[in-house]
Amino acid sequence: MHKLPPLARPSKQAISPTVIVESEKLNIALGMPVLLALETFQQTGSFKFRAAYNVATNSTFAHLVTASSGNFGQALAYACKLTGKACTVVMPSTSSQAKVAAVKNFGGQVRLVDVLQKSRAEWLQELVAELGEVEAVSPYDDSRVIEGNSSLAEDLLPHCHRFDCVIVPIGGGGLSSGLIVGFGRNGIDAEVFGAEPLLANDAARSLRAGSIISNDREPMTLADGARTLSVGKKNWEILKDGLAGIIEVDEDSIAASVRLLFNQANVKAEPTGALGTGALLSNKERFAGRKPLLIVSGGNVDPDLFARLIA
Amino acid sequence: MHKLPPLARPSKQAISPTVIVESEKLNIALGMPVLLALETFQQTGSFKFRAAYNVATNSTFAHLVTASSGNFGQALAYACKLTGKACTVVMPSTSSQAKVAAVKNFGGQVRLVDVLQKSRAEWLQELVAELGEVEAVSPYDDSRVIEGNSSLAEDLLPHCHRFDCVIVPIGGGGLSSGLIVGFGRNGIDAEVFGAEPLLANDAARSLRAGSIISNDREPMTLADGARTLSVGKKNWEILKDGLAGIIEVDEDSIAASVRLLFNQANVKAEPTGALGTGALLSNKERFAGRKPLLIVSGGNVDPDLFARLIA
Repeated sequence: MHKLPPLARPSKQAISPTVIVESEKLNIALGMPVLLALETFQQTGSFKFRAAYNVATNSTFAHLVTASSGNFGQALAYACKLTGKACTVVMPSTSSQAKVAAVKNFGGQVRLVDVLQKSRAEWLQELVAELGEVEAVSPYDDSRVIEGNSSLAEDLLPHCHRFDCVIVPIGGGGLSSGLIVGFGRNGIDAEVFGAEPLLANDAARSLRAGSIISNDREPMTLADGARTLSVGKKNWEILKDGLAGIIEVDEDSIAASVRLLFNQANVKAEPTGALGTGALLSNKERFAGRKPLLIVSGGNVDPDLFARLIA
Repeated sequence: MHKLPPLARPSKQAISPTVIVESEKLNIALGMPVLLALETFQQTGSFKFRAAYNVATNSTFAHLVTASSGNFGQALAYACKLTGKACTVVMPSTSSQAKVAAVKNFGGQVRLVDVLQKSRAEWLQELVAELGEVEAVSPYDDSRVIEGNSSLAEDLLPHCHRFDCVIVPIGGGGLSSGLIVGFGRNGIDAEVFGAEPLLANDAARSLRAGSIISNDREPMTLADGARTLSVGKKNWEILKDGLAGIIEVDEDSIAASVRLLFNQANVKAEPTGALGTGALLSNKERFAGRKPLLIVSGGNVDPDLFARLIA
């Protein structure tokens, strides 16, 4: 379906298979049968480990660095630990202690920076210049990231008679582009829809315009995994023809979806992970008669925020 | 290992396989490698469906009734729906709307009763007398319940090299006795430990005394699935020799375990479901060097209570 430069096939040994569940309560609530693919139980709690591990096993550098306040930092730290590499994660000095501790517990070093003074990208450049023999890794705009994420398709293959379309959260486009590549490789012909916060709808606007459009600043959506300025260039090349569409999800629907997954399916999803469910919840007519599979991309969420969302 | 009267083997077609997960964050927090078997994604959200479905498929009656304010009522209602039977669940008039709605959504009828006026058992007797051709079903003290729950052992079999002991919540003893029977049938020689609230430690006291001891009244532990007066007679016959021990878990450790599973493993567990984790958390030395598997028996919990527990 899409040609990528030849790369090592994603290594599977450390990856946890995605967890496929179906809940009759959720089906009743949504009025249609829905499958969930839970990446909340992936290593480090999100799909990002698929990408991070593929980068770590294919990089020739002994020390990888990235800028991430969230799931990719944890994923890269643990991937580096498993592959015997060093890892440094640039994080805003305002990051929660829990997030900093998670990176450190997975063996990563943390460089706290003031993002009001300089952008994360600038801090990252500085760190690379300072450290020398290191590789800076993008959480999405990298062929190894896309290939790593594409391994999710092999996990979905045995279930492909149970769904006819997939709704996947979209931020930088790493997971959605990976899924499209993986579906092509495995001959899975289900449509792939992106689910994006309405507040951060750069990908939807890009799709309408036919070229990458960026947000002016980081949009403060509840779905913090989708607070990207734009999709990556490598991702865009796959997404522009591979996506069946992008559904924009308002903040209330994101919150309602976290609650719905909690109450009707016993799933702990982070707001970004609930985007696919939110897209369905706010577009039931569009998917009437379909058999959607929703990718719950991650589960790492601050307990105080989660408590507010479900109470 | 234990002889039971010959019964139909538990039917598996409607049962969801248990979900086995491992979390490196949880391993770090507990200081040992731990496997989780999540029955939170079982049909109706708890292991009880295994039992309920086996009863429904093996009962000659067209209408089943039970007294349950919790998981067994939902499980029996859905099992009856799938097998074309009627189902009535006796519930306290103080039950939450969500719990009543869950039974009704699964096709069950609800009979709300005043448990201060008469006990649930008396209300159930009255209902049976009134309805005539119905069967009253115990959530635990029934051979079909034990056989149904024993199907969990077949799900654990492919993973049995990864654990050497199992910690399982104990209330009426339905799941723990089922697991012992299933391990015997499959030649799994892992020790089975019960995990019981200290506030409701009738099973632990029974094991020490060598005969069934009952609580005087329903103990108000956070683990509402273990608020039973005593283990069942049929369960006791299996438990008294089959258990490696019972670990009593205080209320603080139950709450801490719900939090721990949420924060370190992305698991939504109800307090009863977190009992096995609580047993380990408060007895780390006892299990040092072991490879425990913790059965997370269910995930249905009131969102306000859950929010208080994690915040």
